Amino acid sequence: MRLRLRVAYDGTGFSGWAVQPDRRTVAGVLSAALDRVLGSATGLTVAGRTDAGVHATGQVCHLDVPEEQWRRAATARDAGEPDPTVLVRRLAGVLPPDVRVRAVEVVDDRFDARFSAFRRHYAYRVTDDPAGPSPLRRYDTLGWPRPLDAAAMAAAARGLLGEHDFAAYCRRKPDATTIRELQRLDVLDADGVLTVAVSADAFCQAMVRSLVGALLAVGDGRRPVDWPASLLSRTERASEVTVAPPHGLTLVAVDYPTDPDEWAARDAATRRRRDG
Amino acid sequence: MRLRLRVAYDGTGFSGWAVQPDRRTVAGVLSAALDRVLGSATGLTVAGRTDAGVHATGQVCHLDVPEEQWRRAATARDAGEPDPTVLVRRLAGVLPPDVRVRAVEVVDDRFDARFSAFRRHYAYRVTDDPAGPSPLRRYDTLGWPRPLDAAAMAAAARGLLGEHDFAAYCRRKPDATTIRELQRLDVLDADGVLTVAVSADAFCQAMVRSLVGALLAVGDGRRPVDWPASLLSRTERASEVTVAPPHGLTLVAVDYPTDPDEWAARDAATRRRRDG
Repeated sequence: MRLRLRVAYDGTGFSGWAVQPDRRTVAGVLSAALDRVLGSATGLTVAGRTDAGVHATGQVCHLDVPEEQWRRAATARDAGEPDPTVLVRRLAGVLPPDVRVRAVEVVDDRFDARFSAFRRHYAYRVTDDPAGPSPLRRYDTLGWPRPLDAAAMAAAARGLLGEHDFAAYCRRKPDATTIRELQRLDVLDADGVLTVAVSADAFCQAMVRSLVGALLAVGDGRRPVDWPASLLSRTERASEVTVAPPHGLTLVAVDYPTDPDEWAARDAATRRRRDG
Repeated sequence: MRLRLRVAYDGTGFSGWAVQPDRRTVAGVLSAALDRVLGSATGLTVAGRTDAGVHATGQVCHLDVPEEQWRRAATARDAGEPDPTVLVRRLAGVLPPDVRVRAVEVVDDRFDARFSAFRRHYAYRVTDDPAGPSPLRRYDTLGWPRPLDAAAMAAAARGLLGEHDFAAYCRRKPDATTIRELQRLDVLDADGVLTVAVSADAFCQAMVRSLVGALLAVGDGRRPVDWPASLLSRTERASEVTVAPPHGLTLVAVDYPTDPDEWAARDAATRRRRDG
């Protein structure tokens, strides 16, 4: 049977999501914990393969497990029916504190964490406080050495909204479309920290951090407000755009249709675009 | 001249505020940075000497420095007048990322970070989420293994408000009064995290964590709602009260009179009580 997991992690100690030999990765650590608690689980698939150093509070993945193993792993000693919270608690007991499985749900087999998703939400935290990031938030907040004009960044952000070819903001990947629909790019200012809230149907690699990098160039006055939107005419990555460091970035949530009938349909549609 | 500093730190890597031989302490690390940037500064005095592992976002301290040194340290190469932000930036360059001097202000000599203060604000974060604390907030959030009843904790908290002898909640210290005015003890519930917000004119040692420990015993059903208030009749520390772990606790702010004329008056009044 198929399980949907909501996962949170502090990316600081990980070489990203995807398993790599001799590297500590989120998928590697999570798979080991799942194997321990569930027995062999297969087909771990994630909504967004975050880069090294990027965090998540609402990452989503799915995996398949024989029903027998699910029942055993999710059933408390004194209760007959499986309870997802039992599995969450058991996983918490074997996972290191920088990865948490926050929720487990049994889902229809048509659900695919990557291909059924229709929207991803990211947040990027940056502060221009002369003192630097608050110590308790230094792991997920970029310190910026020059004053940032949040209003200019917000104005620049508005020019990027909508469906565009974001080739200028994508790392090249042969045969993959770079057309995306940017649904939200807000610059929020609270307690001396700017949060860039970014939502799109999907993102190409390094896209969020490239968008933030372009907004930071506007924010500290190195580029005019209309510069980020002017790059949308490019057909290749714009080398002038600096990719913002990973540690300011957090994958906050992934949206799926509520109707399982739409999961497979969306899956087919998304696969055609080759790049989730 | 006297400088007031607002300081933030992640207590994880510190053996508390106060300097101890062969230990990494906030005062030790801060003094070394101040010496480097200001030349010798003297009389570093803090509002709340936090225990090992306790954090701060709004700690306050003061120190004295010859005017000449202040002018040199706070003046940028190309500007004539000293600017506190210049000093903040220079300190940020030499401090480790787990301590930040967030603001510097020149104050009247009557200001005393400890004795002029009339109120301290703390926050304690705890979650009963079966998955445990969110990875990015695991350094300042306690995970609680049993479900917590926030309404019961809030009801218990109300019974502790006001001026009482908090001997049951204090580590013994000979000749020091344990009478305090507890002005706020709220239990706030947001995103699966309970924040216990605590304010008083002053706190005796381990008092905040003892109050939280008592509320947690109510929250998970081990003690009745009226139990924490019932201990106020004690004249000695109540051994049944568990001191909650330090890493959930943050010193958020310290309040001072706005009128400098009240700084010295308050100082004299507070000193008489012997224990800030």
